Amino acid sequence: MAEKTGLVVSAHPGDFVWRAGGAIALHVKQGYRVKIVCLAYGERGESQWAWKKAGVKLEDVKAQRREESQKAAEILGAEIEFFDAGDYPLRATEEMLDRLVDIYRAVKPKFVLTHALEDPYNFDHPLASHIAQEARIIAQAAGHKPDPDRAYTAPPVFLFEPHQPEQCNFKPQVILNIDEVWETKYKAFQILAAQKHLWEYYTRVALNRGMQGGRNAGIAMTYGEAYQRLFPSVVSTLS
Amino acid sequence: MAEKTGLVVSAHPGDFVWRAGGAIALHVKQGYRVKIVCLAYGERGESQWAWKKAGVKLEDVKAQRREESQKAAEILGAEIEFFDAGDYPLRATEEMLDRLVDIYRAVKPKFVLTHALEDPYNFDHPLASHIAQEARIIAQAAGHKPDPDRAYTAPPVFLFEPHQPEQCNFKPQVILNIDEVWETKYKAFQILAAQKHLWEYYTRVALNRGMQGGRNAGIAMTYGEAYQRLFPSVVSTLS
Amino acid sequence: MAEKTGLVVSAHPGDFVWRAGGAIALHVKQGYRVKIVCLAYGERGESQWAWKKAGVKLEDVKAQRREESQKAAEILGAEIEFFDAGDYPLRATEEMLDRLVDIYRAVKPKFVLTHALEDPYNFDHPLASHIAQEARIIAQAAGHKPDPDRAYTAPPVFLFEPHQPEQCNFKPQVILNIDEVWETKYKAFQILAAQKHLWEYYTRVALNRGMQGGRNAGIAMTYGEAYQRLFPSVVSTLS
Amino acid sequence: MAEKTGLVVSAHPGDFVWRAGGAIALHVKQGYRVKIVCLAYGERGESQWAWKKAGVKLEDVKAQRREESQKAAEILGAEIEFFDAGDYPLRATEEMLDRLVDIYRAVKPKFVLTHALEDPYNFDHPLASHIAQEARIIAQAAGHKPDPDRAYTAPPVFLFEPHQPEQCNFKPQVILNIDEVWETKYKAFQILAAQKHLWEYYTRVALNRGMQGGRNAGIAMTYGEAYQRLFPSVVSTLS
Amino acid sequence: MAEKTGLVVSAHPGDFVWRAGGAIALHVKQGYRVKIVCLAYGERGESQWAWKKAGVKLEDVKAQRREESQKAAEILGAEIEFFDAGDYPLRATEEMLDRLVDIYRAVKPKFVLTHALEDPYNFDHPLASHIAQEARIIAQAAGHKPDPDRAYTAPPVFLFEPHQPEQCNFKPQVILNIDEVWETKYKAFQILAAQKHLWEYYTRVALNRGMQGGRNAGIAMTYGEAYQRLFPSVVSTLS
Amino acid sequence: MAEKTGLVVSAHPGDFVWRAGGAIALHVKQGYRVKIVCLAYGERGESQWAWKKAGVKLEDVKAQRREESQKAAEILGAEIEFFDAGDYPLRATEEMLDRLVDIYRAVKPKFVLTHALEDPYNFDHPLASHIAQEARIIAQAAGHKPDPDRAYTAPPVFLFEPHQPEQCNFKPQVILNIDEVWETKYKAFQILAAQKHLWEYYTRVALNRGMQGGRNAGIAMTYGEAYQRLFPSVVSTLS
Repeated sequence: MAEKTGLVVSAHPGDFVWRAGGAIALHVKQGYRVKIVCLAYGERGESQWAWKKAGVKLEDVKAQRREESQKAAEILGAEIEFFDAGDYPLRATEEMLDRLVDIYRAVKPKFVLTHALEDPYNFDHPLASHIAQEARIIAQAAGHKPDPDRAYTAPPVFLFEPHQPEQCNFKPQVILNIDEVWETKYKAFQILAAQKHLWEYYTRVALNRGMQGGRNAGIAMTYGEAYQRLFPSVVSTLS
Repeated sequence: MAEKTGLVVSAHPGDFVWRAGGAIALHVKQGYRVKIVCLAYGERGESQWAWKKAGVKLEDVKAQRREESQKAAEILGAEIEFFDAGDYPLRATEEMLDRLVDIYRAVKPKFVLTHALEDPYNFDHPLASHIAQEARIIAQAAGHKPDPDRAYTAPPVFLFEPHQPEQCNFKPQVILNIDEVWETKYKAFQILAAQKHLWEYYTRVALNRGMQGGRNAGIAMTYGEAYQRLFPSVVSTLS
Repeated sequence: MAEKTGLVVSAHPGDFVWRAGGAIALHVKQGYRVKIVCLAYGERGESQWAWKKAGVKLEDVKAQRREESQKAAEILGAEIEFFDAGDYPLRATEEMLDRLVDIYRAVKPKFVLTHALEDPYNFDHPLASHIAQEARIIAQAAGHKPDPDRAYTAPPVFLFEPHQPEQCNFKPQVILNIDEVWETKYKAFQILAAQKHLWEYYTRVALNRGMQGGRNAGIAMTYGEAYQRLFPSVVSTLS
Repeated sequence: MAEKTGLVVSAHPGDFVWRAGGAIALHVKQGYRVKIVCLAYGERGESQWAWKKAGVKLEDVKAQRREESQKAAEILGAEIEFFDAGDYPLRATEEMLDRLVDIYRAVKPKFVLTHALEDPYNFDHPLASHIAQEARIIAQAAGHKPDPDRAYTAPPVFLFEPHQPEQCNFKPQVILNIDEVWETKYKAFQILAAQKHLWEYYTRVALNRGMQGGRNAGIAMTYGEAYQRLFPSVVSTLS
Repeated sequence: MAEKTGLVVSAHPGDFVWRAGGAIALHVKQGYRVKIVCLAYGERGESQWAWKKAGVKLEDVKAQRREESQKAAEILGAEIEFFDAGDYPLRATEEMLDRLVDIYRAVKPKFVLTHALEDPYNFDHPLASHIAQEARIIAQAAGHKPDPDRAYTAPPVFLFEPHQPEQCNFKPQVILNIDEVWETKYKAFQILAAQKHLWEYYTRVALNRGMQGGRNAGIAMTYGEAYQRLFPSVVSTLS
Repeated sequence: MAEKTGLVVSAHPGDFVWRAGGAIALHVKQGYRVKIVCLAYGERGESQWAWKKAGVKLEDVKAQRREESQKAAEILGAEIEFFDAGDYPLRATEEMLDRLVDIYRAVKPKFVLTHALEDPYNFDHPLASHIAQEARIIAQAAGHKPDPDRAYTAPPVFLFEPHQPEQCNFKPQVILNIDEVWETKYKAFQILAAQKHLWEYYTRVALNRGMQGGRNAGIAMTYGEAYQRLFPSVVSTLS
């Protein structure tokens, strides 16, 4: 029987934690193998505190953020691979694209989580989304590293919630109930010690999405994560 | 255990057949009780052939279309209730809205199917969608015909595909696989004997949505119906 | 051979002059019979100057505006019919809708010109557009005042340019070259003596749309009118 | 010198508290006279708890909600007028529209706050927005209750944040810093004793809009209210 | 007298056949010289069948697809030039852009046909559209390979229909009646022997666009191709 | 006290004159230091007249346009820096991006003016907007050329009006009253001697935006410039 798997393509370490930590932990709990591709360490643009001491070195910041990311991934129960693509600006090479195609084909994910299509606050985010989508398409091409025995189906893509959703033209179409794994997600928050103000911000986001989820479905739930689908879902029942 | 139920709010008889006949038959097959509210008989605007003979009377056209609708609903396995709201233009009264609220509360549908939000070719369609939505909202109001023992949860709404989807700003978010009931749907088509040219039109729509569904999901399927969701879905897994 | 005809549905007198005066005069020049339906006289909301003298009566304002409109229509070469629907707010009755359906069937227009779909500055405008569209649809219904011998084809609809186009989500899809009839249009402006500041405003609009038209088509032209199409055009060549 | 005034048009009592309580209190503190028009008491649809006891009467629920609204308005420092238009569904009469026009002309507001243009969860909200906009337009018409001495300028309109902003196509264009009056707003929350779960929901909304405001402007602020503008602002400097 | 010419910029061979084959054949029949620029052979991503036999070589797949494309172009009556830009992903170089500018200037097309602006299923398509548009703009620049005697006018651009139009935010604005050349288009389908399932898919698309065209225009027609315009059309009559 | 500063990122010389000349002159008059970054000289695509004489050299055209731009900037009172990025197509290098980041940090602008997000007539424009935005984001990254003493706040971005605003999905959100500096702006027009037809075009744009501004605000004003905001404004009062 085919393994259940998921793939997350994240620009920076914080993103997979704040935006998709619940989905990752929940599917791991449900028996999925989840792999995170973390394109950059967020070393220049998302490590403001580290640069407050004079003389700090880029490599040190990267190492520290890598370690944090590794720990956060462990808490969530996922594997993680780093591309070291640089940040502010992130610049994806053809080699990275190629490696990501290989990952799609190896993991054969049942779903992919990545960034929203637009973000005027952070151009690394839509670029990460673009490479995630492009690799997914290329992985379908029979003539890219051809192998007649390969089976691969392009998975559905879920875009996770950006920091200021309306400014990114993000529209929630799916609210995932993450009550069961909230504590795990919050533990992953705590790894990101330098962004303590965001712990509470994203706790509030989760509570409000949770209340919206409850209201939309008429069920009791407390914590939610919002996603936008890139493609139609195909179903055999409407309820 | 709660009965599984569905509700369809259709402007004219053809609409529930062409646009939602697959969903109706499929859910009936899955054990759902499905109720159709047919707001008008399509007597003036969707019975062109009947008016070709001089001297025909409105009541006769209505009776004929009512009979057809009844038969089509039977083939699909659904109940049907007529509001006789008139067509071209459809005009919904407060009494009809009130009746529809009662139906929501009695049926307690797990899903509602109705028209798209816009249709520049046919203003009866968005009006039907409007009344379907408004009744759904009012049915939630504890102070409307209050009854402390009542349990009612507003159901998800699925908008069915209009005749020219792009002109109606309709975007498919859900493709329902209707392979299992295609023959039933096509039998219902055949009741609408005067619109034979549309049998083939909507067969082509179903085949193309089916191929799109197969392509989006990487599965084999032949016939599909497309729907747009009005509200986010609330889920506990993403695949 | 079928007569060439056009229909204009305008909320207030100024609208058909500023927004469609060129199209009217041009088609008249090309041998079209053009009929204007002017829903209201603009007596309350578009006659600010008239109300500056104390004691003026509504009927007098209406009479004056009716006379002006009549003259402007004559200059443009069109017939005009008034519905006296009131303005600020315009309120269309079922009788008016019915009369407009009759007009569609009598005139059998090759095109209809009316207001844009939205206008946050003036709610009479989208309402006029709504009634124009609804009558066009009803006129297609064989069972509305049935007559098996009637031939009627729903005409294309062109939305004319509102005062602040971007705020109305108006997007020009057609630029009509009105060079040949500019002087006639400008003469019609001059009938609207109390709105002299708008003569120059709409002259500038015409010049800028003219320059855009020239630039889009690579031709020399000076004056233009912009329209948005409500429906696809059906063509047998792309150039 | 002209008095500084503001106008709020709210469908139900909760709306002006949750969505605009900060703006009201802040402008009152800045010396504005603020008037709230509360169209309905929310008696049927937003008083679920009251209907839980059998035999309660509509008039009692209305009286109770009226009292609450009055108190909340007092805490915020605003006047309030009730239209008793009914809720679920709200139905505005021509008399109410006329009264609202009179209020515009009497108050001469420097700004108007009302609901977003769409809300698929609650049709009373866009209807309230529609009447607020329509009255604003009619108040400009010189021929509506003419008076040559009247001075009236149509004010800017700010749409306040709906419960699920993305589903309403609401896009924040203005974030108002309400730090100075947060405690007052929260006191007004506490009047709405039966909706205690919403106190925390809207506190989280205020905190997250506050953090977004701080991030957008590079300033320290804690609590925010988001608004969308309906019309362009006219300025004499860009910073 | 100026020759009548058209230009088609297609990502892969199938695209100009499925999406624009009717327009090409029709204009050829009307005396146009039509040139197709086919950016890639679709060798990796649109030749799944070819890769099913082990050991097949990229060059062989390309040669085979080139031959097919050549034949399909011949059947349609058009010239074809290949850029061999690679597919999945297509990567356009500055040299290709430069060559395409030269082609615009040499062909002086009366219209350009290319891909829709977005396609989440296939990133080669919007990229082809981008290069087609960019070359059209550069061809206007007097200082690019300057020649004071050159006459060049940027042509209108028509975007052809993608595989899943709503997902690409494609909106038909023009429906081209291709009845006269349907058999030719279908013959070109048959060259694409390995994609037989798409023959019927695109026949259904043509039939449904044809029925929509007939309905929009009130004329009898059977087969249509849908296009979206990128720029306003400039006209001297509205019918 | 912090100096008041503004930054303008313009693709070609004409752009900062036609689109933002009023804002530049006005803020200079208000004591701002304004810096213009002019990415290209418009040498190939916006100097049609220069290329009409045979044998003219690219360097000569660039020199002439540079001189003009310098003069226009002087008239407006601003500094100017040229990047010589080429035009038709403009191609921004990583070095240019880096230089622009340095400029942001040195100037610390209170506002940035740049191009709209889309322009199907001119791809240099959205590219200029993209680099202006990307540099603004990178300038926030503490780890880009780290300096713990640096203070930098990302400024609000205002998009200026493109030549055909609706085709670029440009929506005016701010109208700047430029009456005080109109003569200065018009003087800068006159430097662009070869584009005399555009002097009148953009005078008409300014007059019409002025009338719209007056109408929106109920004030007397004559000349306006329209801008779209990229981010919400943060305010402490709504009027």
